[in-house]
Amino acid sequence: MSTVPSFWSPRIAALEPYVPGEQPRIAKLVKLNTNENPFGPSPQVFDAIEWAASEGLERYPDPESVALREAIAARQGLHCSQVFAGNGSDEVLAHAFFAFFQQAEPLLIPDITYSFYRVYAQLYGIACELLPVDEGLRIDIPAMAARAAAGCAGVVIANPNAPTGIGLPLDAIERLLAACRQRVVLVDEAYVDFGGESALPLIDRHPNLLVVQTLSKSRSLAGLRVGFACGQAHLIEALQRVKNSFNSYPLDRLASAGAIAALEDEAWFAHTRHEVMDIREGLTLQLEDLDFEVLPSQANFLFVRHPAHDAAALAAALRARAVLVRHFDRPRIAQYLRISIGTRDQCSALVDALADILG
Amino acid sequence: MSTVPSFWSPRIAALEPYVPGEQPRIAKLVKLNTNENPFGPSPQVFDAIEWAASEGLERYPDPESVALREAIAARQGLHCSQVFAGNGSDEVLAHAFFAFFQQAEPLLIPDITYSFYRVYAQLYGIACELLPVDEGLRIDIPAMAARAAAGCAGVVIANPNAPTGIGLPLDAIERLLAACRQRVVLVDEAYVDFGGESALPLIDRHPNLLVVQTLSKSRSLAGLRVGFACGQAHLIEALQRVKNSFNSYPLDRLASAGAIAALEDEAWFAHTRHEVMDIREGLTLQLEDLDFEVLPSQANFLFVRHPAHDAAALAAALRARAVLVRHFDRPRIAQYLRISIGTRDQCSALVDALADILG
Repeated sequence: MSTVPSFWSPRIAALEPYVPGEQPRIAKLVKLNTNENPFGPSPQVFDAIEWAASEGLERYPDPESVALREAIAARQGLHCSQVFAGNGSDEVLAHAFFAFFQQAEPLLIPDITYSFYRVYAQLYGIACELLPVDEGLRIDIPAMAARAAAGCAGVVIANPNAPTGIGLPLDAIERLLAACRQRVVLVDEAYVDFGGESALPLIDRHPNLLVVQTLSKSRSLAGLRVGFACGQAHLIEALQRVKNSFNSYPLDRLASAGAIAALEDEAWFAHTRHEVMDIREGLTLQLEDLDFEVLPSQANFLFVRHPAHDAAALAAALRARAVLVRHFDRPRIAQYLRISIGTRDQCSALVDALADILG
Repeated sequence: MSTVPSFWSPRIAALEPYVPGEQPRIAKLVKLNTNENPFGPSPQVFDAIEWAASEGLERYPDPESVALREAIAARQGLHCSQVFAGNGSDEVLAHAFFAFFQQAEPLLIPDITYSFYRVYAQLYGIACELLPVDEGLRIDIPAMAARAAAGCAGVVIANPNAPTGIGLPLDAIERLLAACRQRVVLVDEAYVDFGGESALPLIDRHPNLLVVQTLSKSRSLAGLRVGFACGQAHLIEALQRVKNSFNSYPLDRLASAGAIAALEDEAWFAHTRHEVMDIREGLTLQLEDLDFEVLPSQANFLFVRHPAHDAAALAAALRARAVLVRHFDRPRIAQYLRISIGTRDQCSALVDALADILG
């Protein structure tokens, strides 16, 4: 690039983009590396997509995604004006960082969390202050609340946290909200449907709360790219302003239709998420039998380490046996593996491979 | 909002978002206001979508959209590394503004062009210098080239231009490229397939050329949200860096599959775009018979004014007759109407309504 530097905006060269989990094109892999749901979406999703395709792909979608936002709002007892929809929760998060956290003070995030938060901050020139999680990799709420009360651009946490899977009770969220009344507290609930406690019921009482969720995990629609944010209308208006200055139509016709169908099939949702949780509990016991330390998870993945085996070596040995898990080569968590909850067969294959590796 | 100002990033309140053309939910409208293609997409698109849905919506799409980028590249004689794909060309444009035009000097754009350009610039704090189009609403290439040579953040033009429909020959593009060697010249070719001349063949010779196209218009896929940019690999790398700092997976599985199918059906593409051009020529004559001045269009719309009738009043009178066209209440073009090319029946309905209004 040294021959053509003048074409890039100066900050582009300094960006360190997020690296998503590998999406290999090899068949027959046991793929437990990107926290996808092992079960497909509601069968009603396919009919909805077929119908939506027949309704006119040559026409733009509703730029405001009203039908989808109303479906989300109705489910949560909210009004459409309290819901923002985007092209996956990653886009929603990016817009939220732009809309709320470009402030003079630093943004507060845990040192161990979804690593994309720091990437968004870098993209928009937002300074981050990383607050260390404790020895058990739990977010230190008292320390974060005290720091927030001293002034900040806002607070971002994932609940349950990634990649630990550890959930926070609502009183911890409320403590942060109370300590940070002048700025937004963003709670990323990508994994909340697998046993966590959602902060959505707090929205009416807290003008500074923004809750972000996704249909990628518990609704099995990672391939459709639909996420949303809920908060009081003044927060949603800010997100709409950014969206309408960026891309008028972020959600295509098929994604909206599929998402609405998935939201409406409560029976499928209940069955599959409970199945994932049940498999998670079984896998936890099996991994503990193999001497792994397993953090308590409220998500569709486990974060584990073995006292006698290097995590990177384990990940490589698993890969050699056609099992993909995620390893983060980062401070404090370099000895952990993040293992997505697969089907029972996939989890058995993982356990068999680990038993083989560990001898 | 005055009670909760502290939550918004300071620049949010100053944004003046883009306002897309109305997407009414009323049936039976003759909708000629958002430049949609009156013909549906290739029938192969529907099969591709059904197949892609069955392939696993619970799994993330390829974050790099390789199959789609290869399909685009193959068609243009380019390499995959010279193609960037995004969630509609609006997203591609937004990323390009971020990647290339955040510079100390102002960005050069025509005063009459796609109004979203100024919105992107405002979003990212980019100063714009508006270069007046001439009396015939043509981009003044000599003036723009001279200004670019004096130093700028880059140049953005639409070819054919919007909302005029007027196209530029390639030698005009090359003159801009030569005058602006240190910065990117972005040519937005959203409408190029309806009779314009694409700058794609210039890419190999010009490291500062970025060409943006969309599948929304000539491929009849406005409802799927797929756009792309082509340029030398160092420009595409910059866009990838922004995209990977914003949203790892901007294109869902169905949009990519549908787009590839549309690109592969050259017969459908040739037939429908020629049909649109043929209808455009007929409508031009009919409007001239009604005393409209019709700008020469290489796009799927006409930009027209009547010497004796106010444009806003005409738009309102058409709306009262269930015909939607677009009126921009902006300096220099407030007396024009932009009329998308519809089916022959839709255009007849428009002409009948206008004849009725004009008496």
